[in-house]
Amino acid sequence: MTLTDLFATRSSRMKASEIRELLKLLDQPDIISFAGGIPDPALFPHEAFRQAYADVLGGAQADAALQYQVSEGYLPLRRWLAAHMATLGVPCDEGNVFITSGSQQGLDYLGKLMLSPADTALVAWPTYLGALQAFNAYEPTYDRLAPEGGNTTPAAYAEAAAKAGGRAKFAYLVPDFANPTGETLTLAQREAVLDLAAELDIAVIEDAAYQALRYEGDPVPPIAALDCARSGGLDAARTIYCGSFSKILAPGLRMGWICAPRRIVEKLVLMKQAADLHSPSINQMAIHRVAETSYAAQVEKVRQVYGARRDAILAALEAAMPAGVEWSRPQGGMFVWVTLPEGIDTATLLARAVAEERVAFVPGSAFHADGSGRNTLRLSFTLADERAVTQGIPRLGRLVRDEMGRR
Amino acid sequence: MTLTDLFATRSSRMKASEIRELLKLLDQPDIISFAGGIPDPALFPHEAFRQAYADVLGGAQADAALQYQVSEGYLPLRRWLAAHMATLGVPCDEGNVFITSGSQQGLDYLGKLMLSPADTALVAWPTYLGALQAFNAYEPTYDRLAPEGGNTTPAAYAEAAAKAGGRAKFAYLVPDFANPTGETLTLAQREAVLDLAAELDIAVIEDAAYQALRYEGDPVPPIAALDCARSGGLDAARTIYCGSFSKILAPGLRMGWICAPRRIVEKLVLMKQAADLHSPSINQMAIHRVAETSYAAQVEKVRQVYGARRDAILAALEAAMPAGVEWSRPQGGMFVWVTLPEGIDTATLLARAVAEERVAFVPGSAFHADGSGRNTLRLSFTLADERAVTQGIPRLGRLVRDEMGRR
Repeated sequence: MTLTDLFATRSSRMKASEIRELLKLLDQPDIISFAGGIPDPALFPHEAFRQAYADVLGGAQADAALQYQVSEGYLPLRRWLAAHMATLGVPCDEGNVFITSGSQQGLDYLGKLMLSPADTALVAWPTYLGALQAFNAYEPTYDRLAPEGGNTTPAAYAEAAAKAGGRAKFAYLVPDFANPTGETLTLAQREAVLDLAAELDIAVIEDAAYQALRYEGDPVPPIAALDCARSGGLDAARTIYCGSFSKILAPGLRMGWICAPRRIVEKLVLMKQAADLHSPSINQMAIHRVAETSYAAQVEKVRQVYGARRDAILAALEAAMPAGVEWSRPQGGMFVWVTLPEGIDTATLLARAVAEERVAFVPGSAFHADGSGRNTLRLSFTLADERAVTQGIPRLGRLVRDEMGRR
Repeated sequence: MTLTDLFATRSSRMKASEIRELLKLLDQPDIISFAGGIPDPALFPHEAFRQAYADVLGGAQADAALQYQVSEGYLPLRRWLAAHMATLGVPCDEGNVFITSGSQQGLDYLGKLMLSPADTALVAWPTYLGALQAFNAYEPTYDRLAPEGGNTTPAAYAEAAAKAGGRAKFAYLVPDFANPTGETLTLAQREAVLDLAAELDIAVIEDAAYQALRYEGDPVPPIAALDCARSGGLDAARTIYCGSFSKILAPGLRMGWICAPRRIVEKLVLMKQAADLHSPSINQMAIHRVAETSYAAQVEKVRQVYGARRDAILAALEAAMPAGVEWSRPQGGMFVWVTLPEGIDTATLLARAVAEERVAFVPGSAFHADGSGRNTLRLSFTLADERAVTQGIPRLGRLVRDEMGRR
């Protein structure tokens, strides 16, 4: 029942808990860390939160903020989110919106709802580590969701799932500025996912954690929007959209949401009644106020700051990395994905990086459900200020050059 | 996968979701309701919370309050709780304390950690509805934990569990002022539970939600304290203590804790990483401040107010109920448990109570894992002001008398 053990069966390299331990160890002032995937606290709307908690606790809402709440969530927040989803091309009402304690809880509940042991979850190789951790508790098999490699036809996916002892239940993906690769699916790729899901009659879990963090180019419609368009409405669709306030407002309140067909929301509400009754009343009321007053301005602010940091890290990589090293050019999000020549093990490289160059990253194998990707690594640029970029990336480049020279 | 359906297989009467719907329907000003088991918001320490959130967001802690946090919880709060547990006879340190989003989440995680389908959970008949809901997700069988009735020897319990297709995994109980009966286990009964658990080599889950709400008599040591004494320390014990701030401070922050052997806490931390990362940072920091300044005074305040309400409702029952009706005399907590003569169905009676007398309660069968207890009902007195008691209990007595006369 230790989730780490479960995860370890998928990845022969670093365990999830080891990575979290690593992140704690790396929290030293002289280490330049590109490891932690967290927002820059300097960008939090501190004043808006101060005002919101003071207003919620200082007025007629104080009793409600401190009292039990319905499991589906605070109605004005659900209405605000329904209106927000409509602006993204997903027309819906509050009956389609369910408040979660962060989008991580949404992933856990969806695994609990849909996965029986030996069922198959389709995921990208690599994909968000936290999603694998959440799903692992329900003991699925993973198959690779990708145009190239893995099973390539619906029949082949279904056959592989049956062979594993269950059925394919959903495709999980982060279509915009994915964690860890930074990549974004094209419109055609999104439609192809919906085609595949329709053939297999499975759900699509759209993890939209980074969707608002676009620094260039035109937005691609959410999969949920494309599904609504082809299904005639969300209640007839198969896509479950997982949203988060963590990257735009603040993660410390643990506030996320699921926007889904009503039949799914109703099941999730019963699940939440049994699991933790409801997300904290006070945080739902406070974030509703902050969303109303500050969401749009916050999106602009984080886009500008993170966008400039992305530009800087990409320029520094260009200057510092030897030939043979490749990396993604994300149009948004928080991460650049670096691929070193085959044969270099980034878990080993990390030990050298910390010891010799005082610079850190996350080795890429952890994000692969099958433990592959040993020559890859993830760089987060959300906390990468000028010093980090101008000193850290050249150090990393020097190390990679040296490691390549040893081979 | 609908939990309500699972629950319904245990109870032939009202479903858990129906009871929650009922509670919403009963929220009308002219209905005197003894149904909802919620604290009186007039007793919340409003000013302490206002000050705590203002301090947390106004000073050097603001960034940490809005940022991600470790899964085990905010260290100063865990230290405060370790000291608090020591005052209850459970010497421990922060490594034994795990922060949960309400004690309900603790129950859910413990079910997830320990129960495989067809395993057996030992529970009282009746017991806390929310515990049954939490455990039902993991598809256990229930056996009756009671001196009278059910299996009476460890061997008989083990045999019944094997026959059901699994193993007995834990005994769950609310030893102080139980929901729904208001009853408290004696020292001898607590020791007997530990003896049984030792024979079966299973865990004991001590749900201490109401423990601080004692209005008369001497405290009985927590089962965790008795277990520490016989085991030589918490890390060698088998008891898992689930605590809650909901009844003393406020439920809207969803703040509870588990105090347990370190080996259990470590597994729960991994589970929480995967399930929701951590409980909200800001609420952990705020409730730590309120606990430091106001916990002891709040205990005194709620004891005085609820104690007086308990006295009033017991006196009113004495005056209003016909011979043949029995009820518990709780030394604390929130509930009085009423047993009507055999043959009266309290679910049917509730319909008459609302329609004819505008008074409400929760029918007792919902709290029985086997759907029995149809002639029982639960009265909550936490919101029972003078009008409720002086008008509501006589109305209920009149109805019961009439129902008994019809038979």
